[in-house]
Amino acid sequence: MSTQTNSSLKKIRVGILGFGTVGQGTWKHLQENAHFWPKILGVELIPSRASVRSLDKERPVEISKDQLTTDSASIVDDPNIDLVCELMGGVEEAKLLTLRAFAQGKSVVTANKALICEHGEELFRAAEEAGVGYGFEASVAGGIPIIKVLRESLVSNEFPLIYGILNGTSNYILTRMEKEGASFEEVLGDARQLGYVEADEALDLDGVDAAHKAVILAYLAHGIWVNLSEVTVEGIRRISNEDLQAAENLSCRIKLIGVIRRNFTNDHVAVAVHPALIPIEETIARTDGVHNGVCLNGSVVGTVVLTGRGAGQDPTASSVISDLVDVVKGVNGISSLPKLVHVSPEQCQPATPDEIEGRFYLRLAVDDRPGQLAKVAECLADRGISLATVSQTPHEKDKPASLILTTHQTNEHSIAQALAQLKELPGVVDDPVLFRMFDPNGMS
Amino acid sequence: MSTQTNSSLKKIRVGILGFGTVGQGTWKHLQENAHFWPKILGVELIPSRASVRSLDKERPVEISKDQLTTDSASIVDDPNIDLVCELMGGVEEAKLLTLRAFAQGKSVVTANKALICEHGEELFRAAEEAGVGYGFEASVAGGIPIIKVLRESLVSNEFPLIYGILNGTSNYILTRMEKEGASFEEVLGDARQLGYVEADEALDLDGVDAAHKAVILAYLAHGIWVNLSEVTVEGIRRISNEDLQAAENLSCRIKLIGVIRRNFTNDHVAVAVHPALIPIEETIARTDGVHNGVCLNGSVVGTVVLTGRGAGQDPTASSVISDLVDVVKGVNGISSLPKLVHVSPEQCQPATPDEIEGRFYLRLAVDDRPGQLAKVAECLADRGISLATVSQTPHEKDKPASLILTTHQTNEHSIAQALAQLKELPGVVDDPVLFRMFDPNGMS
Repeated sequence: MSTQTNSSLKKIRVGILGFGTVGQGTWKHLQENAHFWPKILGVELIPSRASVRSLDKERPVEISKDQLTTDSASIVDDPNIDLVCELMGGVEEAKLLTLRAFAQGKSVVTANKALICEHGEELFRAAEEAGVGYGFEASVAGGIPIIKVLRESLVSNEFPLIYGILNGTSNYILTRMEKEGASFEEVLGDARQLGYVEADEALDLDGVDAAHKAVILAYLAHGIWVNLSEVTVEGIRRISNEDLQAAENLSCRIKLIGVIRRNFTNDHVAVAVHPALIPIEETIARTDGVHNGVCLNGSVVGTVVLTGRGAGQDPTASSVISDLVDVVKGVNGISSLPKLVHVSPEQCQPATPDEIEGRFYLRLAVDDRPGQLAKVAECLADRGISLATVSQTPHEKDKPASLILTTHQTNEHSIAQALAQLKELPGVVDDPVLFRMFDPNGMS
Repeated sequence: MSTQTNSSLKKIRVGILGFGTVGQGTWKHLQENAHFWPKILGVELIPSRASVRSLDKERPVEISKDQLTTDSASIVDDPNIDLVCELMGGVEEAKLLTLRAFAQGKSVVTANKALICEHGEELFRAAEEAGVGYGFEASVAGGIPIIKVLRESLVSNEFPLIYGILNGTSNYILTRMEKEGASFEEVLGDARQLGYVEADEALDLDGVDAAHKAVILAYLAHGIWVNLSEVTVEGIRRISNEDLQAAENLSCRIKLIGVIRRNFTNDHVAVAVHPALIPIEETIARTDGVHNGVCLNGSVVGTVVLTGRGAGQDPTASSVISDLVDVVKGVNGISSLPKLVHVSPEQCQPATPDEIEGRFYLRLAVDDRPGQLAKVAECLADRGISLATVSQTPHEKDKPASLILTTHQTNEHSIAQALAQLKELPGVVDDPVLFRMFDPNGMS
């Protein structure tokens, strides 16, 4: 080991479970800042061991063979390891190792959104009972410090609306489709080559990763754990270049957003992830590429927007290390992560679809025959839905025409019913495409 | 007093020095969240006393006469007061009262940027020696939690560049001038009526308030106190509607920005506040009205941008209360504000003008005679400055013509010399107007 240690200072040794991109980034930046930790913490903070799948793989970071192991539990159990970074991903093994660390009085820092989304309630309780810290800044929006801002900086606020871009991969794909007119499949191929897409592609493309993060934000803002099955989750696969162009004609951009709304009259909370048309003047609409952006609408502060890199080795390591520093302050008796619960669970309930209002964008592939638009409009009118704009793109010979509609205010229940009926309408060729029209002022 | 207190919980009583907009906002939101503090802090947090100039003035907040005093020191000295919020503004009295509170072991939370800019070094040392907290989140960018993000969330980062809009009043004026074509004087009149302009108008209009904040950010990022006399400070008074239009033609917007650059090869730090042309695609260029926005370029995290309301009762109270909560965690043994110093002072030195490179925008009022442009270009060429764009607006009869130039890369020293010479050039009618062309990628 080349790390120089000053023997007069207390040493806090960090064990890293999972030595992929983020694990190696955390190791590297802990080493590079070694001179800095004694100044702000009064202790040394030393990356000491890491668990890997293969001991023999070449790695660009400075680590010796005897610091590596394939046995994650041996790191957790090592009496010389004071803190654990769980950066291995996956749910079941990560959960067992996290609880095992807590049981030994060791604080844990994680970037694992799936784990927290599924088992956060149990894990936070276990951490509290064990009197240890559990940091998860890196689990939402990569390098953007949204967790700390939400639960510390904006502590006097309630949040009628939080929304934002929570998945960099899908935003990268949408941005390139929009700017270059490239097809979904083409950009997806590039994203795979760049290593941007998770092995389980549904996480990125079908909105699941963003939904994990939205559930975590909903918990921090409202103190309730919304079950993933209660979250509307739609991905980006049905967004076409035609939709992106139609959105532009409506002075909007289509983004995959997580949305957490709370109605303070009945304390119902709605959590959703779906593509939405966002007015071009909103910062979130112009947050492009792999960047994430979160807009917090606070009852005291008003609107605060944070943007930055939502994933990647360095931004995520930045968040992991900020949690490590907070946890070390706790171990060292200076500080600790704050208590979590913003309101007690019994106050909030998930919202039902008829409560969730908004405007919608519909694209229908229709046979180009007389009276088709009238039938569609009638079907919507039957559910009390009126149209705001209508445009029919010129169709090519022997292909269906594209009918693009936007509605006035209605609700999720009515539009879902109308959609089911539209699917069955003679002359409607394919499943209709439905996106939300996001109104940033609709809740305030 | 109508505030219900639960006698089984420890009570932390807050005294507020200065009961203006922010003081009353803090009082109100502490009261409104009274049910919440025991949940996250395990103690009650009670606004108890406030000092005012006039006891008899009508105030919209719920406060009894016996909680008010005209004697701020009596609040500081009151053994029943545990924490002090210094929200009175001004420098000398505020400093004395802050030190007086520290001497009695009381933590202080402030929104006073002028005080911290001028006496931060002494005050932070005094707080550390007294073992108390000194919170100042509200001193920079109102409700935007820039202080906490900079020193806690991004703790593993160094910052080659931080820039942003730090004064809402000047941004409000520029935005209305740009959007409506209204004159500076006209919008300034409105801003005065709306109560947006400080009694000392130089603070807002001449960049002094933004400079106070830039000095604080430079300290947090680099650990040095830059003297205000070493900061380039220019305000918005010379920005004309013509400049705003010319900037738009260059795909830019003119904003009054604070800029803190550090050159990591020689550890020189440059702090400046001045109008700058910012490319329209930057979030800061599109941060309008009374909003503030700060762009942090971190060595690990990359670019993080925060926007939000930069002043006003509620946003500022949101920041004051987040500090109060952090301080109470300290009093209660849970946590405290972090140590401050990011690097040791001897490492950093202020940059000299010849080190500060960039491109510039020049507007000259010139007599419309042959060879005028050639003379101007020659004068710039003598200093090694070449031109990127030139445009001459059609002049009205008997009025000078407007010559608008942008330069290629040069430095502050050369442009200052050229400017002095241009002023003396025959045919140049008025003092030339000089703005920076901000290049967000120039440092990374």
